[in-house]
Amino acid sequence: MTRAAHGDEAAPLLHPDRLFPADPATRRLARALHDAVADLPIVSPHGHTDPRWWGADEAFSDPAALFVTPDHYVTRMLVSQGVPFAALGIGPGAETDPRTIWRTFAAHYHLFRGTPSRMWLDDAMSRLFGIDRRLSAATADAAYDAIAERLARPDYRPRALYERFGIEAIATTDSALDDLSWHRKAREDGWSGRVVPTYRPDAVIDPEAEGFAANLDRLGGITGCDTGTWAGYLDAHRARRAVFAEMGATATDHGHPTPQTADLPPPEARALFDRVRAGRAGAAEAELFRAQMLTEMARMSCDDGLVMQLHAGALRGHSARVRRDHGPDRGFDIPVPVSFPQALRPLLDAVGFDPRLRLILFTLDEGTYARELAPLAGAWPCLRLGPPWWFHDSYEGMRRFRESATETAGLLNTVGFNDDTRALCSIPARHDVARRVDSGWLAEMVVTHRLDEEEAFEVAPLLAHDLAREAYNL
Amino acid sequence: MTRAAHGDEAAPLLHPDRLFPADPATRRLARALHDAVADLPIVSPHGHTDPRWWGADEAFSDPAALFVTPDHYVTRMLVSQGVPFAALGIGPGAETDPRTIWRTFAAHYHLFRGTPSRMWLDDAMSRLFGIDRRLSAATADAAYDAIAERLARPDYRPRALYERFGIEAIATTDSALDDLSWHRKAREDGWSGRVVPTYRPDAVIDPEAEGFAANLDRLGGITGCDTGTWAGYLDAHRARRAVFAEMGATATDHGHPTPQTADLPPPEARALFDRVRAGRAGAAEAELFRAQMLTEMARMSCDDGLVMQLHAGALRGHSARVRRDHGPDRGFDIPVPVSFPQALRPLLDAVGFDPRLRLILFTLDEGTYARELAPLAGAWPCLRLGPPWWFHDSYEGMRRFRESATETAGLLNTVGFNDDTRALCSIPARHDVARRVDSGWLAEMVVTHRLDEEEAFEVAPLLAHDLAREAYNL
Amino acid sequence: MTRAAHGDEAAPLLHPDRLFPADPATRRLARALHDAVADLPIVSPHGHTDPRWWGADEAFSDPAALFVTPDHYVTRMLVSQGVPFAALGIGPGAETDPRTIWRTFAAHYHLFRGTPSRMWLDDAMSRLFGIDRRLSAATADAAYDAIAERLARPDYRPRALYERFGIEAIATTDSALDDLSWHRKAREDGWSGRVVPTYRPDAVIDPEAEGFAANLDRLGGITGCDTGTWAGYLDAHRARRAVFAEMGATATDHGHPTPQTADLPPPEARALFDRVRAGRAGAAEAELFRAQMLTEMARMSCDDGLVMQLHAGALRGHSARVRRDHGPDRGFDIPVPVSFPQALRPLLDAVGFDPRLRLILFTLDEGTYARELAPLAGAWPCLRLGPPWWFHDSYEGMRRFRESATETAGLLNTVGFNDDTRALCSIPARHDVARRVDSGWLAEMVVTHRLDEEEAFEVAPLLAHDLAREAYNL
Repeated sequence: MTRAAHGDEAAPLLHPDRLFPADPATRRLARALHDAVADLPIVSPHGHTDPRWWGADEAFSDPAALFVTPDHYVTRMLVSQGVPFAALGIGPGAETDPRTIWRTFAAHYHLFRGTPSRMWLDDAMSRLFGIDRRLSAATADAAYDAIAERLARPDYRPRALYERFGIEAIATTDSALDDLSWHRKAREDGWSGRVVPTYRPDAVIDPEAEGFAANLDRLGGITGCDTGTWAGYLDAHRARRAVFAEMGATATDHGHPTPQTADLPPPEARALFDRVRAGRAGAAEAELFRAQMLTEMARMSCDDGLVMQLHAGALRGHSARVRRDHGPDRGFDIPVPVSFPQALRPLLDAVGFDPRLRLILFTLDEGTYARELAPLAGAWPCLRLGPPWWFHDSYEGMRRFRESATETAGLLNTVGFNDDTRALCSIPARHDVARRVDSGWLAEMVVTHRLDEEEAFEVAPLLAHDLAREAYNL
Repeated sequence: MTRAAHGDEAAPLLHPDRLFPADPATRRLARALHDAVADLPIVSPHGHTDPRWWGADEAFSDPAALFVTPDHYVTRMLVSQGVPFAALGIGPGAETDPRTIWRTFAAHYHLFRGTPSRMWLDDAMSRLFGIDRRLSAATADAAYDAIAERLARPDYRPRALYERFGIEAIATTDSALDDLSWHRKAREDGWSGRVVPTYRPDAVIDPEAEGFAANLDRLGGITGCDTGTWAGYLDAHRARRAVFAEMGATATDHGHPTPQTADLPPPEARALFDRVRAGRAGAAEAELFRAQMLTEMARMSCDDGLVMQLHAGALRGHSARVRRDHGPDRGFDIPVPVSFPQALRPLLDAVGFDPRLRLILFTLDEGTYARELAPLAGAWPCLRLGPPWWFHDSYEGMRRFRESATETAGLLNTVGFNDDTRALCSIPARHDVARRVDSGWLAEMVVTHRLDEEEAFEVAPLLAHDLAREAYNL
Repeated sequence: MTRAAHGDEAAPLLHPDRLFPADPATRRLARALHDAVADLPIVSPHGHTDPRWWGADEAFSDPAALFVTPDHYVTRMLVSQGVPFAALGIGPGAETDPRTIWRTFAAHYHLFRGTPSRMWLDDAMSRLFGIDRRLSAATADAAYDAIAERLARPDYRPRALYERFGIEAIATTDSALDDLSWHRKAREDGWSGRVVPTYRPDAVIDPEAEGFAANLDRLGGITGCDTGTWAGYLDAHRARRAVFAEMGATATDHGHPTPQTADLPPPEARALFDRVRAGRAGAAEAELFRAQMLTEMARMSCDDGLVMQLHAGALRGHSARVRRDHGPDRGFDIPVPVSFPQALRPLLDAVGFDPRLRLILFTLDEGTYARELAPLAGAWPCLRLGPPWWFHDSYEGMRRFRESATETAGLLNTVGFNDDTRALCSIPARHDVARRVDSGWLAEMVVTHRLDEEEAFEVAPLLAHDLAREAYNL
């Protein structure tokens, strides 16, 4: 058994063989493969940790603020069973006592049975906070106290956790309008951690984003470019991308409702921008503008080398009431059907054979793995498949990904793991789940003689570490 | 090993370990979990048993009428291999001798290898009728005689079977126009069985239903409401729902081509009703009316507490000839792609946070489990996921459901099992299949350390019994 | 262990238990089932071997021409990782030295880990060419020499391989305009092999096919029919089908973008043909014409008995540049979503109950297996399900097919295996993979008591051999 890599004590809530196949011979091999990768450093090329954590390095205030209120995986499940948002400290009339919020959470902890959240939470409570009884109404206070006590310690501040978790590099996701001041602060402090921003320009690319026109004005102000013109607007992107790259960014990220791309002749693109800029674009033109901008972003990636990520297919803010009262990222974003081949064609025909481009695709519609994404990534040199995203960042989700994508895309057209998290303490747990699932899957490949054992030992560290670093140029 | 719960003798056609995982340790645990739930009473909150069975309690006429002619799972498979409907006693020129029909069925019994029908039929013949050789041309007559002999006995009449099967409550599915006389008869007889109706108003909601205008006239006649006006039409629904509830109904059921909902301003709804009522609605308006009525039904559920079920996505009567010659429910209903998030939005924005609403969703498009339904049910407090429906009421179908939905929806946003059957003798078999598959799945969850063993023993009776009772307020 | 059926020596690259389930008891049974079918003759009712091979019986020129350049599974994967087409001997500036091409291939052989190509290639190199070390840069030259040496031998010419592989019958796929001269040559030579053509009329049915008008002129020239009129055009099809049948064809094959069918009244069909013939049809009319022609082909199948195959849902030539520089079948054909029920309705309502029709459906959109195809094939007497196609001709693809389709379609509504290959040496490997996967699946059915052991031994040869022969009338 490997040492408990990212924690500092035994973990009674976690079985050392968790997530390994049941068959004894396969399990033995899975264990050996996991042993070989469990302690590799963490490369986290895509996620949503708060840059302020890294820049300010302040202590987390309390267990509820760490584990409950900001975690949409957690809050949505409680809401789905009738717990009001307010009881979780969110929105009008919100509960303000963290211990009360924590007790509500603890009393409903059984709801997470069979979910990835339960694995991540058990892992963090167990390995990071030394808790040895599963959370429930009965254990709520003891757990609260144990966590609160450690959160006050200097070795539980963000930068200390970075070290404790064995992180080698981590990317945040940042608005094109962000001044990256916390990244700058971390750098100026001379801190050795590698935290890099990611250029996420949705707010200045999506004409349907809130405050789009004002955002473009701000973009002009920040860059000194004339965002009233198509040329100036593109220059402003180039300028911001350069600033991000200078601060260590190696990638961009694009969260679009669909993966539609377009490659309009320049005069048409210019005319479209003019309508969009004037606020005269309808839904179809907004979609076309987003589509055109993906191709523009790909062209810029050819020039500046930033790896491009596309996350498409989520219907954001499914409940009008939740959107209005509680804002975005509250667990009411719902995936919808998506299809890539026709949508990506304009971009790919424009720059798909440019050796400088790398475009990583993510999906929430798992039917696209075998039908579309693996065939695309197994042909176009610029394409890679991102790991299972969001709801699919789970045991079954990862299994389905490997089983659906590998035969057609191969392994080297994938990019390792993303933790994609807003929950700092879930990082080691998420990477460990991925390493365990991949170890189990590789073991099955060997036992069914689809891969030699020595090949599996060669592949395991690629999946756990190397591919992420290479794919994202980290 | 548990006693053969719902039968009265040994069952040589059934292996005691059927449907349990192959791995020996996992199988042992699956067996123990199944032992703990095998004898729990059956709660059957959704199905299509004939109310006359329960009201009249007559003997079934013969084995063909019990097992062949009315079972579309059976007839479709034989038709698919060239057996004419007529040979199965259906339609023009139909064979009338039940033994001849039975022999045709028996001679083709090998067609059912690998299908759930084979499991259900083997179970019924074996446990209920004491047959110990698998059906074939060679055993046809012996099986026929064995079944016919018992069907004549009083302890094989419907109410006796209800007791024998250990049913605690069973719901039928009934037209809004049904007078519920058989339910009334069962009640008036003082019979202790709990058979409740379900309000299924498709015939008075779907403008494309046969005889829609006449149906609305009848609805008006039955209720004394003026179904010539929107207000009167809604009142008529309220009145019928109240009658159903008075007869024990706890739920409504809606079989729509799509899950589309709408929430029109009242004047528009009224105008739409007027066009629909006048027979002037085209296909798009018919769809919009069905959509609007789902939201109206949800509103009424808030008021009267009836749980709402939505079964969407079947293309009914795929063959014009079968529809014409043999009527509905002949196995030619074919699922089509479906998508829920946009479709449900109007209804959910209207009443999705009303704590009095429960809406249970069913799908035939399994891609929606992980992509849409689990995310929706894991967020909206009114939503629950119905069990695998129709073609997916099977070993593989149930596995896919658990594996696709649990991680995102959790377990408590599901509602246990529905047998959904028209075949009385299949009821214990279907529930047993579900209990076995869930036991096997839970055992794998434990062996891979995704659930503790004591948790699995806590969850198993929920899935087998409690969730159905609770979700349907039975 | 069975003898190494189609090869002449031991095969160190291949484990005798490959692709069998991990559980020891299940594996033992899988092995026994495979032993029972491993040496059955190969029936290959659908594929793309070059008729010239069989007619001319020439030696293959070199290992690269045999294994690399024409195999789009191979070239796409190398291209996806940055290898230029030219380095593989394809397109402008192509490398012409076969050994250099081979070395490029060998140096990238690790890319195929986990893919079916790796299984097929290992099998052919190992069992056919006696190679005992896995291909790599280090073994490239030795493998090249070993293959080249044997290719020069008379017992490695196509007809000898036919015998060596134990082929009983094999179908090629041939343009409606093909003169079938190589088939004729094989017959005239008095060769005992059974190589039959398949009528593939896409080039004279798809108005969007390159050279469509000229193709119709040629069709008229070949048949003496007036392909300027709808009646003459249909007659020309009848004439060509008769010629194909006379040369042994038992089937037609239709590769359409969608499975849309239509059944227009004759005057409308005639008018549509006139517009199509005149080159005045837009995209929608082209689609309608293809749709109408599927129904016409089905009608002709009723008359002449040719089994009809429909392969729908591939977006051909996804890259404009690859299409232009390297032509079709270069690995840039990408599946798109597809739906069958509405699309097939016109054809099925026209001839779906005609006992003379058999229509075999193939899909690249695996979501359709359980949702649509199994329900359709389990009802309509004319329909059968083709085996997993193209990207899904793989371990996982075959598993998903059996698990998704069997419960609803049964086994006898499937048609056994197609190798569908352009790569002659992959034939035995592909059939062996299918037999192994099916043996493993049947073993699991038995171990989980969904099938009796003697039934599994009855079913295994059906899946491996008999169903293909029967379904295709071979």
